[in-house]
Amino acid sequence: MTTEYRRLRVALLGAGAVGSQVADLLLRHGDELADRAGAALELSGIAVRDLDAPRDTDLPAELFTTEAESLILGADIVIELIGGIEPARTNILQAIGSGADVVTANKALLATHGPELFEAADRVGASVYYEAAAAGAIPIIRPLRDSLAGDRVVRIMGIVNGTTNYILDRMETEGADFADVLADAQRLGYAEADPTADVEGYDAAQKAAILASLAFHTAVPLDAVHREGISSITASMIEEARAAGFVIKLLAVCERLEANGAESISVRVYPALVPRSHPLASVHGANNAVFVEAEAAGSLMFYGAGAGGVQTASAVLGDVVSAARRHIAGGVGVGESTRANLPVVAIGHVTTRYQITLEVSDAPGVLATVAGILSEGDVSVATVVQTVDGEAEPTARLVIGTHRATDSALSATVTALSESSVVERVVSVLRVEGE
Amino acid sequence: MTTEYRRLRVALLGAGAVGSQVADLLLRHGDELADRAGAALELSGIAVRDLDAPRDTDLPAELFTTEAESLILGADIVIELIGGIEPARTNILQAIGSGADVVTANKALLATHGPELFEAADRVGASVYYEAAAAGAIPIIRPLRDSLAGDRVVRIMGIVNGTTNYILDRMETEGADFADVLADAQRLGYAEADPTADVEGYDAAQKAAILASLAFHTAVPLDAVHREGISSITASMIEEARAAGFVIKLLAVCERLEANGAESISVRVYPALVPRSHPLASVHGANNAVFVEAEAAGSLMFYGAGAGGVQTASAVLGDVVSAARRHIAGGVGVGESTRANLPVVAIGHVTTRYQITLEVSDAPGVLATVAGILSEGDVSVATVVQTVDGEAEPTARLVIGTHRATDSALSATVTALSESSVVERVVSVLRVEGE
Repeated sequence: MTTEYRRLRVALLGAGAVGSQVADLLLRHGDELADRAGAALELSGIAVRDLDAPRDTDLPAELFTTEAESLILGADIVIELIGGIEPARTNILQAIGSGADVVTANKALLATHGPELFEAADRVGASVYYEAAAAGAIPIIRPLRDSLAGDRVVRIMGIVNGTTNYILDRMETEGADFADVLADAQRLGYAEADPTADVEGYDAAQKAAILASLAFHTAVPLDAVHREGISSITASMIEEARAAGFVIKLLAVCERLEANGAESISVRVYPALVPRSHPLASVHGANNAVFVEAEAAGSLMFYGAGAGGVQTASAVLGDVVSAARRHIAGGVGVGESTRANLPVVAIGHVTTRYQITLEVSDAPGVLATVAGILSEGDVSVATVVQTVDGEAEPTARLVIGTHRATDSALSATVTALSESSVVERVVSVLRVEGE
Repeated sequence: MTTEYRRLRVALLGAGAVGSQVADLLLRHGDELADRAGAALELSGIAVRDLDAPRDTDLPAELFTTEAESLILGADIVIELIGGIEPARTNILQAIGSGADVVTANKALLATHGPELFEAADRVGASVYYEAAAAGAIPIIRPLRDSLAGDRVVRIMGIVNGTTNYILDRMETEGADFADVLADAQRLGYAEADPTADVEGYDAAQKAAILASLAFHTAVPLDAVHREGISSITASMIEEARAAGFVIKLLAVCERLEANGAESISVRVYPALVPRSHPLASVHGANNAVFVEAEAAGSLMFYGAGAGGVQTASAVLGDVVSAARRHIAGGVGVGESTRANLPVVAIGHVTTRYQITLEVSDAPGVLATVAGILSEGDVSVATVVQTVDGEAEPTARLVIGTHRATDSALSATVTALSESSVVERVVSVLRVEGE
């Protein structure tokens, strides 16, 4: 191809696992990308903090610079892969201010400062692309923002964190305990040395905020996302779930609620029981999947690798080509649509089913007492399975599946159960999703 | 929301199953769509052939007109849901000529006249949107065109025809024969009175041409797509497939090939054996799924309803919102990227594995004869399973799994086998995909 294309200068901020792959692909596939974008994409530089930091790449040394600001000022497209809030936020605002389009994979920044960035872009007609921020290489941003823009999303259930899915899947397959699998996952590089962001659901909560914002045309603040992690999940909870026909998955649930004609949304992250027949139950290893229910389109699922340098680089480069096409086509960028502006309800108002496992003393009248507490709490029982456990001092195990009730009624009832003299231990409480 | 939006006139051509749903959703959700599009979408009219044709809708009678051309000339966005080649082609060219953007679900037209339409749109800076043309409500066009624009697609395997998947799935579940399930599917409305377009793979071939064009940045003509249907699939072939760990699916396979440094592509539709563990094996009923393998992104899958009026309407309306946003943002439409212009190879040059089932006389030396024919044909054998069938006059059944070979070598070998005196019958020949 010998076409003379207009040249667009692409500045890359950050040269970590994703950044170095992005640079490598940009350099290696430049001609092909130019044909697709209708513009030559010239990598004008790579801003890093420390030129001498060890790097596992063959990228030309002359591309590296510590002068992020001057790199940004000369760029048509700025790719931000630094992560974290600062200096990423300032750099992106500089890029927008100088008329560049921005591509970012920074979920933490988008979940906390998204509206600020989108408004800044809107003011000057620039665009912020972030396909890589929500589920790695899985194309989910464009489907939600564009393909489903004429539909009404009812619910999203996403496995959006690969580390926790890897851990839960291995616990499920091997009958192993959380701490053992986590340690091994850290050794194999599936989990960070400090695994908190993944295992306590912070990463998933950021992605949930991004997905809910898009799906419901509402700026969802991160602190409106209810969040629970998986560190309290035990091998025996997974075993019990299996016996009842479920797998345990860390889900990001974004849901449209309607009550008395008024609409609201709920955004929450927690480990939940998912029926084995649900498509999300077969998402194994570190893979991600996003299950979307929409009024007209029905059920859709998007599946793929949720993380990884080269996989995420694919999503970043797709955004770079989109940004380049827009530069060539002219016109202003299409801003975020947040005009629906729906209220986000607290977890207490959300209705789900609970599965409650109790250890109770194996004596006459215990079941009646437990049933009484549930009924006083306005929680209606769907199923009860009782098994006798101990031998010398016999205790029974009760697995109670409730009907749908508000989370506040359910959690108050669990508290009441834990305080009852007949209940020796609340073994586990898990919500059921995807039925 | 009381924002005063710019009004865009939307002309609808066709009021069938999809068209009437599109009109209904446009009218019912007008305010919501306006907030998302940044423009008020005014349905200016619905062009039909016959005003008096019976219609199962509550749409206002005054919207209907037989004057397609004058409706088109006053429109900003034209939705073409007539189907077929003419008058759809002429109407779309009129729309483009008058500066409108076009939204269409017309796979037959795109697969045969796509380049003509895209070039016409390019000349005036208009856009042609067609998310609904390839897999119903499943967002697959934007992921391929935009999200994966920075990656290199290696292979697409799609279940893109709901009717044939419904039939094969019921044959699989019920052990029923093709003709019986087809008759029932016709009764239930899953198959047309004339089922040829679906069961012989013509519909899937059109979608394969569209997907391959996008994925490989190459205008793929429909007649370059190799096509076989499912009418020769029997209950016993499905039973045998199951015994060997496979399900039979009608697949659209779009593949990038590399030989001696030169690239080409293959686009083909046929019933194939898919391993039970492959995600496509669990796509049941009339659902569709598109499995995409890309160099950087790895494996992705997109799953959902492949057809249905309201589901397809969701995809059409997503395109209408995109077209409206572009009108408001300004700039020219982004054209199709076909600059890679890769050659499409004939089926004979494609390499796959075959699974060949033969009935042979149960006599000494037969296996040696069969093995000799395979080796003469340069087809190397991976597995052979022999079972004895008859009683009085014993025949044996040989199920031969070959290694990968070119389709021409494999099909010549099957011909040689069928002409051999030891082979009583070639029971079935199926390709294996997704291993």
